[in-house]
Amino acid sequence: MGPMGKHPSANKLKIINDPVYGFIKIPFPLVYDLIARPEFQRLRRIRQLGLTNYVYPGANHSRFQHAIGAMHLMQEAIKVIRSRGHEISTEEAEAVTLAILLHDIGHGPFSHSLENSLIRDTSHEEISLMYMESLNEQFQGALDTAICIFKNEYPKHFLHQLVSSQLDMDRLDYLKRDSFFTGVTEGVIGSDRIIKMLNVVDDSLVVDQKGIYSIENFLIARRLMYWQVYLHRTVVGAEQVLLTMLKRARELYALGDRIFATPALSYFLEEVPGRFQKKNQDEFLCWFTLLDDNDILASAKVWCNHSDKVLSLLADGLVNRSLFTVQLEEKPVEEERMNIMRKLVADHLDITEKEAASLVISESVSNYAYSDLDDRISIMDKNGQIRDITEASDMLSLEVLSKNIQKHFLCHPRFLDELMVKNK
Amino acid sequence: MGPMGKHPSANKLKIINDPVYGFIKIPFPLVYDLIARPEFQRLRRIRQLGLTNYVYPGANHSRFQHAIGAMHLMQEAIKVIRSRGHEISTEEAEAVTLAILLHDIGHGPFSHSLENSLIRDTSHEEISLMYMESLNEQFQGALDTAICIFKNEYPKHFLHQLVSSQLDMDRLDYLKRDSFFTGVTEGVIGSDRIIKMLNVVDDSLVVDQKGIYSIENFLIARRLMYWQVYLHRTVVGAEQVLLTMLKRARELYALGDRIFATPALSYFLEEVPGRFQKKNQDEFLCWFTLLDDNDILASAKVWCNHSDKVLSLLADGLVNRSLFTVQLEEKPVEEERMNIMRKLVADHLDITEKEAASLVISESVSNYAYSDLDDRISIMDKNGQIRDITEASDMLSLEVLSKNIQKHFLCHPRFLDELMVKNK
Amino acid sequence: MGPMGKHPSANKLKIINDPVYGFIKIPFPLVYDLIARPEFQRLRRIRQLGLTNYVYPGANHSRFQHAIGAMHLMQEAIKVIRSRGHEISTEEAEAVTLAILLHDIGHGPFSHSLENSLIRDTSHEEISLMYMESLNEQFQGALDTAICIFKNEYPKHFLHQLVSSQLDMDRLDYLKRDSFFTGVTEGVIGSDRIIKMLNVVDDSLVVDQKGIYSIENFLIARRLMYWQVYLHRTVVGAEQVLLTMLKRARELYALGDRIFATPALSYFLEEVPGRFQKKNQDEFLCWFTLLDDNDILASAKVWCNHSDKVLSLLADGLVNRSLFTVQLEEKPVEEERMNIMRKLVADHLDITEKEAASLVISESVSNYAYSDLDDRISIMDKNGQIRDITEASDMLSLEVLSKNIQKHFLCHPRFLDELMVKNK
Amino acid sequence: MGPMGKHPSANKLKIINDPVYGFIKIPFPLVYDLIARPEFQRLRRIRQLGLTNYVYPGANHSRFQHAIGAMHLMQEAIKVIRSRGHEISTEEAEAVTLAILLHDIGHGPFSHSLENSLIRDTSHEEISLMYMESLNEQFQGALDTAICIFKNEYPKHFLHQLVSSQLDMDRLDYLKRDSFFTGVTEGVIGSDRIIKMLNVVDDSLVVDQKGIYSIENFLIARRLMYWQVYLHRTVVGAEQVLLTMLKRARELYALGDRIFATPALSYFLEEVPGRFQKKNQDEFLCWFTLLDDNDILASAKVWCNHSDKVLSLLADGLVNRSLFTVQLEEKPVEEERMNIMRKLVADHLDITEKEAASLVISESVSNYAYSDLDDRISIMDKNGQIRDITEASDMLSLEVLSKNIQKHFLCHPRFLDELMVKNK
Repeated sequence: MGPMGKHPSANKLKIINDPVYGFIKIPFPLVYDLIARPEFQRLRRIRQLGLTNYVYPGANHSRFQHAIGAMHLMQEAIKVIRSRGHEISTEEAEAVTLAILLHDIGHGPFSHSLENSLIRDTSHEEISLMYMESLNEQFQGALDTAICIFKNEYPKHFLHQLVSSQLDMDRLDYLKRDSFFTGVTEGVIGSDRIIKMLNVVDDSLVVDQKGIYSIENFLIARRLMYWQVYLHRTVVGAEQVLLTMLKRARELYALGDRIFATPALSYFLEEVPGRFQKKNQDEFLCWFTLLDDNDILASAKVWCNHSDKVLSLLADGLVNRSLFTVQLEEKPVEEERMNIMRKLVADHLDITEKEAASLVISESVSNYAYSDLDDRISIMDKNGQIRDITEASDMLSLEVLSKNIQKHFLCHPRFLDELMVKNK
Repeated sequence: MGPMGKHPSANKLKIINDPVYGFIKIPFPLVYDLIARPEFQRLRRIRQLGLTNYVYPGANHSRFQHAIGAMHLMQEAIKVIRSRGHEISTEEAEAVTLAILLHDIGHGPFSHSLENSLIRDTSHEEISLMYMESLNEQFQGALDTAICIFKNEYPKHFLHQLVSSQLDMDRLDYLKRDSFFTGVTEGVIGSDRIIKMLNVVDDSLVVDQKGIYSIENFLIARRLMYWQVYLHRTVVGAEQVLLTMLKRARELYALGDRIFATPALSYFLEEVPGRFQKKNQDEFLCWFTLLDDNDILASAKVWCNHSDKVLSLLADGLVNRSLFTVQLEEKPVEEERMNIMRKLVADHLDITEKEAASLVISESVSNYAYSDLDDRISIMDKNGQIRDITEASDMLSLEVLSKNIQKHFLCHPRFLDELMVKNK
Repeated sequence: MGPMGKHPSANKLKIINDPVYGFIKIPFPLVYDLIARPEFQRLRRIRQLGLTNYVYPGANHSRFQHAIGAMHLMQEAIKVIRSRGHEISTEEAEAVTLAILLHDIGHGPFSHSLENSLIRDTSHEEISLMYMESLNEQFQGALDTAICIFKNEYPKHFLHQLVSSQLDMDRLDYLKRDSFFTGVTEGVIGSDRIIKMLNVVDDSLVVDQKGIYSIENFLIARRLMYWQVYLHRTVVGAEQVLLTMLKRARELYALGDRIFATPALSYFLEEVPGRFQKKNQDEFLCWFTLLDDNDILASAKVWCNHSDKVLSLLADGLVNRSLFTVQLEEKPVEEERMNIMRKLVADHLDITEKEAASLVISESVSNYAYSDLDDRISIMDKNGQIRDITEASDMLSLEVLSKNIQKHFLCHPRFLDELMVKNK
Repeated sequence: MGPMGKHPSANKLKIINDPVYGFIKIPFPLVYDLIARPEFQRLRRIRQLGLTNYVYPGANHSRFQHAIGAMHLMQEAIKVIRSRGHEISTEEAEAVTLAILLHDIGHGPFSHSLENSLIRDTSHEEISLMYMESLNEQFQGALDTAICIFKNEYPKHFLHQLVSSQLDMDRLDYLKRDSFFTGVTEGVIGSDRIIKMLNVVDDSLVVDQKGIYSIENFLIARRLMYWQVYLHRTVVGAEQVLLTMLKRARELYALGDRIFATPALSYFLEEVPGRFQKKNQDEFLCWFTLLDDNDILASAKVWCNHSDKVLSLLADGLVNRSLFTVQLEEKPVEEERMNIMRKLVADHLDITEKEAASLVISESVSNYAYSDLDDRISIMDKNGQIRDITEASDMLSLEVLSKNIQKHFLCHPRFLDELMVKNK
């Protein structure tokens, strides 16, 4: 008997208690069945904000909570759009709900932190799609329309926009949720007010003119959350430690040192040609489903005492929050300065300069508040005319908003601070 | 025995329960005594947001609550500034606390709504100062320093800035409080985070660089609150009805029609030369202390049935929220169009066109997010360099922020809509 | 054209912003029309918690807000009960919504404070009913079913229970709302959880067994709110001052002293035989609609300077919060002690002992947490068996819960404290 | 250089952002140093509420957050008690702060879930004490007084009560915090109001009479949280699955099957005589510090595919939330009924009845609201007389409150439901 057969559907419209929205109702029996799958339950074991809890201790919420929250907002959006006279059939409502529910299912451990690291050349969106296709087989094609919407191949374009655009239910949930759990209350956005202002014109999502101030606030609050939370220098530094640690672990693996790792992590540390190719998709997903925050932390704790000094230093940094010093730089650090620091580190730890290179990290992060290349945010005035938010708002200038702000960081072990002082 | 002698001072450090901040402690015995004065108790009977409750029913909070809240934030600011190594003596702390406590004591009924109406040529700040001087006499000079700070004549300039500037405790409280009571949660600002970032350089308040995003958010949230709440067109329309009603009442008074009014309102409806002059200040304050929201509403209810059609129409509009139609216009309405409408109104109500003139109102409101003419918001970077927020932020452009945004409204009785349609 | 004809019904399903629940939708066009009536708008001018803001300054919320909130909870309850398989027709849903919306429309100034004072021998429920009948006429019988439900004459008994019982939407709203605005956060109840547990058995409301702990919490939180807020001794004292002041005003009226009063208050101060009899109902309602908090406060401010010492002392107490001393007594104060105090007051103020009698007040208040005489709270276990909450709960004992707790207070002017000390 | 020498102490009075209380200040440099220790950082990796997130997805908060929160409340309590005139020296304030900070440091994975399981015969309090002694050595005796207070050997008895009693800062934080993160808002308690009511008489904590209703509410809210959250049958069922799984893992280890486990978990799965004895304390703590939620989950994921059917069934239940059916029973299930079920399970899985025994679990949990055997809650009336809360409250009866409520559960794999039906 397949997963759909387990429970009579009447019992599946359960209610979930959420500290952000209160009660959330499961809107379709199929949603219940998908949530029950191991592929989805795994999201309970992945922190929504990776290592952010090192700065904001409240930020321990999971991807599971976010997916459920975005699903809830989708129900509100469907109600509003229908009330404006636009048809969304029950089948479409279910499909767009499934699409948002599963949109992030392909996230790896610590969410964004490990993209392009453990899993090379494959974005979390691609993995989400693989999962959706795999689940679609298990559920005999019940996700066909959801996948269509997710891939933006469904005729009603606006349904895709609800799942992925600059004003999708993903962002409306995560900004509100992350603000709640970090305690950065001023980052809160008016998700509900924005949703109440949604409409559809020419198959595209638009926002009523009355919502301009809410959108301005949304863009600025998002910017606040990026620099104050997501790209906080201590968080960025912690992620660098994590990434560098895993890179070192892979190097040791490649050198034949089979350091301790849980089986799932071990699979991803090994360099096996073709491992992440299409033909091996089933095997890949099978292991990926077993991989989460626990594997990294459980393994890193063992590495704290490994004889490789680079690995143990990084693992200790991660596990015991003896994090690296992170300082903001005006521009990328010059090679010469890097070399001096690497040499000091190498001497101090008695390792090669090449090994030391991975302990002195120059990194930059960037963010823009709004992009006109992306799916734009459109405002509809009372005459039905559509304008881009940057034109409709007398406050926001596209030029300024779409500027790609870049920040440069220098991360290195704490002891280097003292060595630098002595060295002067 | 003077008011200070009433209670032993130990009992005066009471705790007040505030839904916004939790427990608020009365920090000085003198604060307790001032709160107990009729001049201050009167603030309980003045709504902080005037007629805003016609749009946001939760907005019934009083000026009393706001004054207590701003006083509370002042204590936090004092603590932070002291912790940065800047001296604030106990006497100065008390004085700056009294200054913020009393900064708005001169507000008339419905707060801003009646400035320059009932009381001509006298701003609420001037009346606040009169009150402070009068209380200073009652308390034998105990408010000397507070008045000095309020008037910006005290050597430590930054103390005045805490009371009145673009980042004063007044704004930090009212934005947070108004957001709370209206339910416009996304208007919330990070008062506490901003206060934690305060510092003093060259006798001026500055904000630590880390606070840039909080300040950006503060300016944009303030803008949201202005257009979404304070200058909401229905609120603006209601205020016009209120103002026009009182103007009509004064006209009738001038014509010898002693319409019903409470004694305090009656005093302000009468045109008596010299009434508001300095030499009559004591009499003025005495009557002003007796005037609040209740006088206006109690009198307006009687006016609903007055034979003067203009007065009764306006009073009914105010009392029963049969508010005027308010529509947004691209520019000020042309005289010709105004005349057509006035004529229609005059005919319909069988009144003169001159009388009808006060029922068709063209009004404009304006707001800017930040002004460089005002006391600026200064940011201090990690090297101690000071820059204006519009330079320090890569997001905010002074040019855009300081733009004076103007909106034009046309308000008129509802029945005119139908007349206009027929008239076409 | 009647009031129903004013607006096309599509525009009436508006959304109201509420700080407690977020967005509240107006569920039926008729609700919109009723809210727009002067009889209902008047609730904006009546504080939900009377003089409680003298202790909890945040408690300025209005009866209007509460009525809208209870209406909102009713929609949730209707949804839940329907989902359990019990039919509620659209007409019934509208009727029960109207019944809860109007259930408190008969409240006088300061809500409960003036029951049995200004209006003798008529409870607020009776006045609510008069209003409903009057509105029913205006709306051509559209409130027939609502009235039926309100009077508990409708066949589906459980609909009446949603409006009036120990677990009605009235209580579920006011406890949550009063907790929010006073800042007594621990008084919060799980309105939404309780509503989710509702069911109907044998035409009576029952609560699912899983809800037992929520009900226990509800009863104890309600008790907390009673003693900590509603019956706080300072609040009780302030209400005594208010009541006594109005009693004195009536006495002066009866003696022919036409003290200042707004016309509406004046109507209720006069003793005119038959004024409150059924045959004069229209006139009564007409004046009652004009009476609210503003009339009392506007008049009391004038009375502060009246030559009658009793009236002016009481008015000053009310207006300027120079409230009476209120102390808790083990039992009602003995007549002898009362007489001593009255004599001291009479001497001090140079008034007669009879006059002084109204300034030394012995009062008692009482409350019980749960009554088995009232409509009980029934719990349904998983076998469908029904038990009273006091039997189903292993915590609550009926004997204890239904105990009528009485507290005795002695209120008198502050100066009496000093006189008593000297007199010892 | 010891851990205290790392940072200059001025930089250690940092501020932590907490979603429950806002900003929390680190009150003493030593607190900063202790938080930085691996022994304390480990609390970041232990969920405060074990497996409760399977029912309340928001409940992912860590022991780290709780310890910081309790430390914050302690500062408030110290301020209040000092303001009552009771001396608490700076040294004592630091010590009682350290005691509350470390009071729970001995918790194992999933908090209470694994007490008396992985670690036999040693309570988490005992391990906390071991840690405190070990840290005391590292910090050259700086924790002497803290340990004295923790063990209740310090002369000022009330300091111990702030750390451990029926009204300690531990409970005041966890009830508030767990209510916040689970979304069970009605479980919220008035921590701040209760703290404001604290006083000391005869070296014992007492609560002012005004606080009676807050205490009643606290006891009932605590009861609600116990039955609705901590002892929710699904949570209890999940914990049984976890416990039984680890028991099975130990059995397999004992049989020589070295199933996969992280090194730290492996240490605790092995039965080595004397391992947990005093003399091996250092080794024990060293391994215990490495053990947290991650080890259990990382290992359980591997066990899902183990050939031992009992282990893999339980591991799958835990990892994928394919939890056992949990039903409430009137009394402990009779042995005969248990045997029937075990036989069915054995047949179905083709395992021995002995093995099946661990899959059909009869468990009971119990709770009382208040105990007079424990450190009582004392109320002080206005005459300074002390009574137990159950005497002072007219609501709470000691007899009822101290009743030990027991609930019996039957847990078994889901498939048994179907087998039972067929078997009838």
